[in-house]
Amino acid sequence: MVRPGGRSARVQASVHAAVRELTAEVGRDALTVPLIAQRAGVTPSTVYRRWGDLQELLSDVAVERLRPDTAPADHGTLAADLTAWAEQFLDEMSSPAGRAYVRDALLGDPDGGNAGQCSAYAAGHIGVILERAAARGERAPDTEAVIDRVVAPLVYRILFRPDGLDTARARALVVSLLAPAPR
Amino acid sequence: MVRPGGRSARVQASVHAAVRELTAEVGRDALTVPLIAQRAGVTPSTVYRRWGDLQELLSDVAVERLRPDTAPADHGTLAADLTAWAEQFLDEMSSPAGRAYVRDALLGDPDGGNAGQCSAYAAGHIGVILERAAARGERAPDTEAVIDRVVAPLVYRILFRPDGLDTARARALVVSLLAPAPR
Repeated sequence: MVRPGGRSARVQASVHAAVRELTAEVGRDALTVPLIAQRAGVTPSTVYRRWGDLQELLSDVAVERLRPDTAPADHGTLAADLTAWAEQFLDEMSSPAGRAYVRDALLGDPDGGNAGQCSAYAAGHIGVILERAAARGERAPDTEAVIDRVVAPLVYRILFRPDGLDTARARALVVSLLAPAPR
Repeated sequence: MVRPGGRSARVQASVHAAVRELTAEVGRDALTVPLIAQRAGVTPSTVYRRWGDLQELLSDVAVERLRPDTAPADHGTLAADLTAWAEQFLDEMSSPAGRAYVRDALLGDPDGGNAGQCSAYAAGHIGVILERAAARGERAPDTEAVIDRVVAPLVYRILFRPDGLDTARARALVVSLLAPAPR
């Protein structure tokens, strides 16, 4: 863990900011560690020591960008909350930037920790939505079921099968999940 | 498309073979285009001209490795066929080699064609299983439903959420998909 306000936290903030600025200015494919280090005001060896290589740095920056900054909105019912969440998730993750972040998070991630963090962000939001439903007395599936039935199909299709992926499909996944269970 | 037996096909075969051999000999991370070209008996510029860069070449090789070589076995019922297919798919894709191939297929794939091909392989096998079920007169979901309910959760968890992913979970996905539909 990085102590907030400490040198390590300042280095991380400046290097992450340099990656975001340079991505906007020169584009993702023109990024190099020396270029990023120069912009961040650190030595390339500082970047290599901390992140290993460019790919791992981009993976860390991607996870940071994928972290949700607001709690999911409360629309009064589980169906409305999950539908709104799924539509926004699809909207963000299927954008060119979202796709690039998901790929970066996966790519420079030898131990799978960053990919796991992305999944944990989604599971966290879903947990909030499900707790609200329970507080309302609504019957609700568990988080892993929402992952399997809503998150996984959206992410799989964004990465492997984008044809025909739209908000109607996202809504249909939620409807199917919340349909009265058999037996 | 590449004419079988033509020069282009021979170059592809020798370069793909060089990647497979060198991966086994020196490991994935030590691969370079010059090393691969030397082993394949072509010039590096031939590789760059055809594949663009190492990542795109590794992506093509990965898709080739992910292509199923046999039709799904016929176990006499839809439930048995889908369960056996899901267990084998999980077994192959969650192995270290399988994970590496899926990541390579995704990552060196600017236009998404290779990732789409991986999904098409799975959809093709599922289609064979569903046609058999129809021929037996069994009630069967459509291919996209199997993608959403079985393939997507397995691939999503392999990449993003591997904890607790095992054959029991794969079997449960099939059971849940084939449970009598509500209403």
